[in-house]
Amino acid sequence: MIDLNADSGESFSHWTMGDDAEMMGIVTSANIACGFHAGDPSVMHATVRSAVEHGVAVGAHVSYRDLDHFGRVFVDIAPGELTDEVLYQIGALQAMARAVGSRVSYVKPHGALYNSIVDNTAQAEAVARAIAAADDSLAVLCLPGSEIGRIAGEAGLRVVHEAFADRAYNPDGTLVSRQLPGAVLHDPRAIAARVVRMAVHHEVEAIDGSIVGVEATSICVHGDTPGAVTIAASVRHALTDAGVALSRFS
Amino acid sequence: MIDLNADSGESFSHWTMGDDAEMMGIVTSANIACGFHAGDPSVMHATVRSAVEHGVAVGAHVSYRDLDHFGRVFVDIAPGELTDEVLYQIGALQAMARAVGSRVSYVKPHGALYNSIVDNTAQAEAVARAIAAADDSLAVLCLPGSEIGRIAGEAGLRVVHEAFADRAYNPDGTLVSRQLPGAVLHDPRAIAARVVRMAVHHEVEAIDGSIVGVEATSICVHGDTPGAVTIAASVRHALTDAGVALSRFS
Amino acid sequence: MIDLNADSGESFSHWTMGDDAEMMGIVTSANIACGFHAGDPSVMHATVRSAVEHGVAVGAHVSYRDLDHFGRVFVDIAPGELTDEVLYQIGALQAMARAVGSRVSYVKPHGALYNSIVDNTAQAEAVARAIAAADDSLAVLCLPGSEIGRIAGEAGLRVVHEAFADRAYNPDGTLVSRQLPGAVLHDPRAIAARVVRMAVHHEVEAIDGSIVGVEATSICVHGDTPGAVTIAASVRHALTDAGVALSRFS
Amino acid sequence: MIDLNADSGESFSHWTMGDDAEMMGIVTSANIACGFHAGDPSVMHATVRSAVEHGVAVGAHVSYRDLDHFGRVFVDIAPGELTDEVLYQIGALQAMARAVGSRVSYVKPHGALYNSIVDNTAQAEAVARAIAAADDSLAVLCLPGSEIGRIAGEAGLRVVHEAFADRAYNPDGTLVSRQLPGAVLHDPRAIAARVVRMAVHHEVEAIDGSIVGVEATSICVHGDTPGAVTIAASVRHALTDAGVALSRFS
Repeated sequence: MIDLNADSGESFSHWTMGDDAEMMGIVTSANIACGFHAGDPSVMHATVRSAVEHGVAVGAHVSYRDLDHFGRVFVDIAPGELTDEVLYQIGALQAMARAVGSRVSYVKPHGALYNSIVDNTAQAEAVARAIAAADDSLAVLCLPGSEIGRIAGEAGLRVVHEAFADRAYNPDGTLVSRQLPGAVLHDPRAIAARVVRMAVHHEVEAIDGSIVGVEATSICVHGDTPGAVTIAASVRHALTDAGVALSRFS
Repeated sequence: MIDLNADSGESFSHWTMGDDAEMMGIVTSANIACGFHAGDPSVMHATVRSAVEHGVAVGAHVSYRDLDHFGRVFVDIAPGELTDEVLYQIGALQAMARAVGSRVSYVKPHGALYNSIVDNTAQAEAVARAIAAADDSLAVLCLPGSEIGRIAGEAGLRVVHEAFADRAYNPDGTLVSRQLPGAVLHDPRAIAARVVRMAVHHEVEAIDGSIVGVEATSICVHGDTPGAVTIAASVRHALTDAGVALSRFS
Repeated sequence: MIDLNADSGESFSHWTMGDDAEMMGIVTSANIACGFHAGDPSVMHATVRSAVEHGVAVGAHVSYRDLDHFGRVFVDIAPGELTDEVLYQIGALQAMARAVGSRVSYVKPHGALYNSIVDNTAQAEAVARAIAAADDSLAVLCLPGSEIGRIAGEAGLRVVHEAFADRAYNPDGTLVSRQLPGAVLHDPRAIAARVVRMAVHHEVEAIDGSIVGVEATSICVHGDTPGAVTIAASVRHALTDAGVALSRFS
Repeated sequence: MIDLNADSGESFSHWTMGDDAEMMGIVTSANIACGFHAGDPSVMHATVRSAVEHGVAVGAHVSYRDLDHFGRVFVDIAPGELTDEVLYQIGALQAMARAVGSRVSYVKPHGALYNSIVDNTAQAEAVARAIAAADDSLAVLCLPGSEIGRIAGEAGLRVVHEAFADRAYNPDGTLVSRQLPGAVLHDPRAIAARVVRMAVHHEVEAIDGSIVGVEATSICVHGDTPGAVTIAASVRHALTDAGVALSRFS
C-alpha cells in the first residue's frame, strides 16, 4: 500500500501550469499551492474542490513568499516571520477546504523551503511550530533524514516520508543534485519500474549501480513537467499491476 | 451597552501605522487587517494575540488585494474571484486566532470594498458568500441600509450596524462625503458628546442641524489618524460616565 | 504598407504565455509587458533583445499594477498615481532597451487600462502625461476615436491607430463586446482576408453585414490565444500576397 | 570637502518612513528607493523632485525584490535575474529623474543586497553589470574593500567609498555587527565629532579604542531612525564649523 503525491494548483492569475484535472484522477494526495509561490485564491478554491471530488487528500504546499521566483530561491527570513508566513498559508487553505466540506490533512513545504529545512534547523523549527499551531493533527510530508522530520516528530506531529519517482539517488540515499547529468529520469517505463521496486522491495538503484534502501510512505510524481501525466499514469498502473494498493496516507 | 470598534494591525513590513497597543486598551472589537491592504503575517499574529490578551473581539478586516493603494481604490473584480479572495483572508486570520487560543468572531470589509458593497449588489453577494462559507456564525459589521447588510441578513448571517464617531451625517442618515468640508470632526470632546447621544438617545445632529435617528450596535473610532488614541479614550470615558457599558457585540 | 503588432513578453516567473520566439518572426511591433500585469525583469530583457534582433519595434505595454488579475479589471486609481505608475513602467523598459542598444518607440496600454482610456478622460490625461514626461517622441498606439488618442494628439504626441484582426465590429465602427456571441473570429483564412480588406480598401464587414470604414496604421494580432502563431502567419502571408508591405510605424 | 548621503523615499502606499522634506535640506546625495524594498512610483516621483529642487544628487537605492521584508533578508537569486532586477529599478528611477529635468548620477545598493555584495562575488558582478548596462557614467557608492567596489572599478565604473556616521568600527576597519552591543551610536554630538575626525583626519576611533584609517568620499547618515534629522543636522553643522565644505560627489 502506498500514497502517490503531486504538486497541484500552481496556476496563477491568467497563467496555467500543469494539468490538475488529469492528475487528480491519478494521485492520492495533492500538494496545493497556497498563494506564496503560486496559486491565487480562485485557483486554490478550484483545486481543493477538485481534490475533494476525486477523494484525493488535501495538503498545504507552503513556500517562501516569492511569486517572483516561484519559491525556488533561498530566502534568509527570520524564523519567527517564517512561522507566521507558513501559518498564514495553512489557514487560507484550511478555509478553502472547509468551504467544500473537507479539511487540510498534511503539509509539504515547496521548493527552496523544502530544501532549506532538510538541514537548516532554525527554519525547520519555524515550520514545525507553524504546523503545530495550525492543527496538531496535520501530518508533515518530508524527506527521510531531514531536520524538519526530526523536529516535527519530536513535537508530536505525524511524519510521513516520501521518495521521488523520477530523481536519481546517490549511494548514501540522498538525491543527486539537479545540476548534475542524469539527475532526473524521463522514461515512463523505467520510472514506473523503479517505483514498483521502491514500494515492493523498499530499495532503489543508485546512480552508481549500488542498491539503496528506501522507506517511503508516499511517492512524489511531478505535475508540471512535459509528460507529467503520462509518467504519473504509468507509475499508477505499474503499482496496481504489481498488487500494490494506492491509498492516501492521511 | 455599546461596542467600540477600530481598525488595527495596519502596519506592514518595516512600516508602522497607528498605535495598536494603546487602542487595544480602549476598544472592544478590533478590525484586523489580513494582508491584502495592510498587515503581514507577523503583524497579524501579534495583533490577534494583543486583542485576545485584552479581551477584545477579533474581526477580519478584509479588503481588495491592493497593498499598493492600501485598499482605498475600487477594483472591478469578478464576484467569484472576490469571494475567493475574501475567504482566503478570513482563513488566514482564523489560523492566527486559533494559534492564540481564540477565534475570529466577525468580518468588516475595508476601505473601497466597504464603500462598494453599500450599493454594489454583485460584490456584496460575493462578500456574503465568502463569510458564510468561512463560518456561518461570523457576524458582519456594516453600515445600516447597505446591500451587504440586506444580503448577509437574508443569508442567515448576523448583521451588526455601526455608526461613525467622527464623521458628519447628512439629514438622510448617510455619511457626508470626505471630499466636502466638515466631513470629519476633530475635537475629542465634541466627538465624545456625539457618541454618547448616539448610544443613549439613538440620534445624531446632521450637518444641517437637523436630528437624525441612528441605530447602531457598534461605534467606529479611527485608529490611524493623529490624535486617534486621545479621541478614542475620550469617547470611552464619556460613555462610561454616561452609564453606557462598553461591551463587545460578539 | 501596414504595421502588425502583438502583445509579447507576457510570461512571468516560472509561468509562460504565448510563443514570443515565433511571433517575433511575424510581427513588426511588439507590445512588451512591463512587470505590472505580466513580464518580470528577466522576461522583459529577453523579449526586448529578441525584438531588437528581429528588427521589431519595441513598445511599452503599460498596465494597471495588478499581476493578480493580469491587468484585466478596472482600477479606480487617482490620475496622479496612474501617471507615476505608467512613467515607472516606461522607464524600466527604456533601460532594458538601452541595454541592448535600442530604444522604446511607442506605448500601448494593456487590458482594462486600454479600455478605460477610450472614454475615461481623467485616466487618459494621466497616461498621456506619463508618456510625454518619459519621452515626447514616443508614439501612442490606440483605438480610433478614443480619448487617449484625442488627448495625446493635443499634447503633441504622435498618435497611431490600430484595428483588430480577429474582433467583430459593430456598424458604428466600435468593437463587439467580448460577452456577445461572434465577438472573436477564429478562422485563420477569414481573419487574413479581413485584414487584407482593411489594409487595401480601408473597410471591414460589420457583424450585421454592413460595411464600415477602418483607418488603421497598425493591425493587432493576438499572441496568447490557441492558434495565435498560425493566425498571425496567415495574416502576414495574405498581406504580402496582396502586395501590402509590412513595416513598423516607428 | 565631503558628501553626505541618506536613504530617502522609503515611504510606500499609505505608510510613511523618515522625514524626506527635512533631510533634503541637510544631505548632498539622496539614495532613493526604487519600488523593490520601499518607494512606490508616486513616492519616487515626489522624492526625486524634492532632491532636484534642493540641488541634492539623485542615487538609485536598488534592492532585492522584497517589499514584505523591506529588502532586509538575503535572497539567493541567480545572478542573471539580479542583473535584470537592478536594471529595471535604475530605469524606473531614470525616467522619474528625466521627468523633472534631471538624471540619476549614482547607485547605492540597499540592505541585504548591500551586505551580500561586500563578499558575494557572483551577486556583486551581477549588480555591476546592471549598472554598466544602465549608464556607464553612473558612480557606485559602496564600502571600501568590498567586492562590488573592486568589480565595478575593474569594469571602468567610478567607485565612491562611504563611511558611516553612527556605526562602531572594528580595529580592522569593518563595521561592528548590529547584533553586538555598542554597534550603533546615538549621541548627536559624539557622532558629529566622529564625522569631523573622519573628514579632516581620515581616521576613526574603533570600538576597542584603537585608531583606524578611513578614506571616504561620502558619509552615510540615517534617515529613518528616531532623531535622524537632529543627528544629520548636527553632523552638517559640525563639518561646516570645522571648515569642511559639503559637496555632492557626482
